[in-house]
Amino acid sequence: MIKADWIAVDWGTSHIRVWAMSNTSQILAFDSNNKGMGQLKPHEFESVLLQLIDPWLRNDVITTVVACGMVGAKQGWIESAYHPCPVDLATLTKQGAMIQSPSLDPRIQVYIAGGVKQLSPADVMRGEETQVSGFYCDHPTFSGLVCLPGTHSKWVAFSEGHIQSFKTLMTGEIFALLSQQSILKHTVNATDESTTEWNQTAFIASVKYAYNHPEDVLSALFSLRANDLLYGSDPSAAKAALSGYLIGNELRAMSTQLNASFAAGSYVALIGATGLTAHYSSALDCLGYVSKAFDSEKMTLNGLALNYQSLKTGVQ
Amino acid sequence: MIKADWIAVDWGTSHIRVWAMSNTSQILAFDSNNKGMGQLKPHEFESVLLQLIDPWLRNDVITTVVACGMVGAKQGWIESAYHPCPVDLATLTKQGAMIQSPSLDPRIQVYIAGGVKQLSPADVMRGEETQVSGFYCDHPTFSGLVCLPGTHSKWVAFSEGHIQSFKTLMTGEIFALLSQQSILKHTVNATDESTTEWNQTAFIASVKYAYNHPEDVLSALFSLRANDLLYGSDPSAAKAALSGYLIGNELRAMSTQLNASFAAGSYVALIGATGLTAHYSSALDCLGYVSKAFDSEKMTLNGLALNYQSLKTGVQ
Repeated sequence: MIKADWIAVDWGTSHIRVWAMSNTSQILAFDSNNKGMGQLKPHEFESVLLQLIDPWLRNDVITTVVACGMVGAKQGWIESAYHPCPVDLATLTKQGAMIQSPSLDPRIQVYIAGGVKQLSPADVMRGEETQVSGFYCDHPTFSGLVCLPGTHSKWVAFSEGHIQSFKTLMTGEIFALLSQQSILKHTVNATDESTTEWNQTAFIASVKYAYNHPEDVLSALFSLRANDLLYGSDPSAAKAALSGYLIGNELRAMSTQLNASFAAGSYVALIGATGLTAHYSSALDCLGYVSKAFDSEKMTLNGLALNYQSLKTGVQ
Repeated sequence: MIKADWIAVDWGTSHIRVWAMSNTSQILAFDSNNKGMGQLKPHEFESVLLQLIDPWLRNDVITTVVACGMVGAKQGWIESAYHPCPVDLATLTKQGAMIQSPSLDPRIQVYIAGGVKQLSPADVMRGEETQVSGFYCDHPTFSGLVCLPGTHSKWVAFSEGHIQSFKTLMTGEIFALLSQQSILKHTVNATDESTTEWNQTAFIASVKYAYNHPEDVLSALFSLRANDLLYGSDPSAAKAALSGYLIGNELRAMSTQLNASFAAGSYVALIGATGLTAHYSSALDCLGYVSKAFDSEKMTLNGLALNYQSLKTGVQ
């Protein structure tokens, strides 16, 4: 029977993912469900967590649980502070940057990582700071842009061990709304994903168009529908084009920082799900930017392990 | 008891609106409901229409019914053709541009106006062409841009009695999705509209920002949420700002045409609901463009009356 030396938790708005970890931060076991922070009241968090991790707990030892993500939001289990950037990652992973949650079970002590805020332009992150920490511990000389694509893409300007500034773009959420709930749903046919292949040619053409004509993206969107009505378009091409317009728009929004990073000889560090980072990677590539992709789960666990080490060694 | 000389119908995706008209095109009566084209199968259209207009029909006379809008779409009652632009409005209002729908009731003959298509860039309209006809009959010397804001804003380049070209922007639909279904709903509080006043200062600032920085609109959207989380923003200001970002983005997409129209000494003819045209008018004004607003119902009825005159006089 697997017993955890410590437990890593990535608790977002829609899902919770838990890992039983060894003292040397090897994964011993994994579980997850869809009891995300978005549907829980504060008093419900502990029982959701215990349902998943109970088999991994010892009765005679207090197990440390380290969590990151929206679980630390105001509407979460307990609010963990936002640290203003520029912020040193070494500070973020210290015990003092976490908050202990009010768990009742004597077998566990739960710590929740703090988020990062930017005062102007106003911006916030929760969870991504832990992935950036995880990336940095493997790439301690990195200086440049870290991109974490997703529902809300985060672009982090990183140098000298600090998150210097960051920007959030709602690309993923807007793609989901447009492809599933707008008039475009009839054209991109997102409900029948199994039969739809990815059309890379349409994607790249749209990335370039949106990057070069940011003011025309809004009208390009309806053209997808009109093309379908007039000529009967291929849903896979239309869906890839929609994605390309939005990602191209995102890259244009980041063009000043991308050009500065490129001039400095850096690459874009992409942290996310494999399929999504592949799209971002090819979009960046077609515009002349270099990127490298990193697995988001590994970065999260790396980051949580740093937090755990701080707790274990008592680094305040 | 009111009897109609003819009946005007504006049948969109979500609503049907019907008017009993006199021979001199005065409104004798009005009715409407939410049996829009979007929820009807072809065989259901006639009974929905009759429920509304039955009291206005005579038993001894065939009453002409003239309809425009999505009722003529492929998924509507019967498909009416798209006319390729450039298209002469005089052509559009002729009998040959309409299609007779397959009604069974001997008391009515129903004609549905055709739409307009643009082959490249692909674009389509249904219903707006009738409003443009209605506007033109009162302004026969007009040359310039006609803007019909709404769920899908249409911008029509109009000269010498022709729709020369047009562009559709999904501004209204994207505003609805973002304000009601995205993470921004918590910030713009669109569900409690009754307590939310319009914040004109926030609106104008956002229009100008989006017009001048089209590439930054995507990141400005999430800043609305972050501002709320960090500083506690006023929902009415956030909602007006969201609207301003999207309308400013739309006006930037139209800037080439707007500048050409302005240079030619023309104004933008705004046709739409009063509140919405007021927002577009102030947005255009803050960017230095002149506009005049026209009531969309009146333009629709003017246009349908032209169609009726063609039917009555047998103009093919």
